[in-house]
Amino acid sequence: MNNQYLLDNLRCIPDFPKPGINFRDVTTLFKNAKCLEIMEEEMYELYKHKGITKVVGIESRGFIMGSAIARKLNAGLVMCRKPGKLPAETIRETYTKEYGEDTIEIHADSIEPNDIVLIHDDLLATGGSLKAAINLVKKFNPKKIYVNTIIEIRDEGLKGREFIGDDVEITTLIRI
Amino acid sequence: MNNQYLLDNLRCIPDFPKPGINFRDVTTLFKNAKCLEIMEEEMYELYKHKGITKVVGIESRGFIMGSAIARKLNAGLVMCRKPGKLPAETIRETYTKEYGEDTIEIHADSIEPNDIVLIHDDLLATGGSLKAAINLVKKFNPKKIYVNTIIEIRDEGLKGREFIGDDVEITTLIRI
Repeated sequence: MNNQYLLDNLRCIPDFPKPGINFRDVTTLFKNAKCLEIMEEEMYELYKHKGITKVVGIESRGFIMGSAIARKLNAGLVMCRKPGKLPAETIRETYTKEYGEDTIEIHADSIEPNDIVLIHDDLLATGGSLKAAINLVKKFNPKKIYVNTIIEIRDEGLKGREFIGDDVEITTLIRI
Repeated sequence: MNNQYLLDNLRCIPDFPKPGINFRDVTTLFKNAKCLEIMEEEMYELYKHKGITKVVGIESRGFIMGSAIARKLNAGLVMCRKPGKLPAETIRETYTKEYGEDTIEIHADSIEPNDIVLIHDDLLATGGSLKAAINLVKKFNPKKIYVNTIIEIRDEGLKGREFIGDDVEITTLIRI
């Protein structure tokens, strides 16, 4: 069930970053201490019994609640970043976007086979970047992978959840 | 006093991002749950009585402990980002780097005059980006501004603390 306080504080910006896109601006949730607390508590309720040992935050809005929930769950935080930003050896995954391709990277020593991993981003829309992150994390062969986002957009014909598939459990805090 | 466990877990990568720079890689602190806890506790000890209402995290490694300490202090988290990434109205500050210039932005409605602000980044080296962030935050005329970084680099002739000046109180967890 959508938390009304979160919905009330989520800003929508028409035509960003390009015409026709109604951008959901989570920075208005981040700057609000009460929203930050609600999001952390909702995520904690979802994952407190899952034995999460690593949270993977996707650059860069995924770092915010990724870090908060990593601390709350007493897990480590792993950065999933755009190419060239991580200084040590990485593994990478390239995925197709509406126009062209994109690549994400993760440090090659960031996850162990005995880890239970929660991948977090702010937004589930097409699911492209999240699926790439799941494919990356799968290469480490961890015990289990969970996925969470703050917002899941179902309008405008978006079917990110179906695109990702059902071999990974996905939770979202706000569904639009 | 430097926490030995943090020092032991901090990775150094020679010649990144360019020859001659000995890069301190904080991702090895982030992925380690115990290091994440130690950093949060040390920051909490420093700021628990300061009445912090907003934490400004500097893109993007500053988002990690920025978010964790914002939750711990029950404050909001404000993102300070590279140009073009924040969707609503912003104010910006341009600063000089070793080669050329750089610009950072913050949402124009992110800080109020009654806020007490903690600016956080992972690293204090030359102090250029932190000073620009301080100048940005000063434009909101908040009650008080504090600055914290995980690492302060004093070798290689770096004098970031002196460059920033003494009108803002700076704390750092690890001094190298």
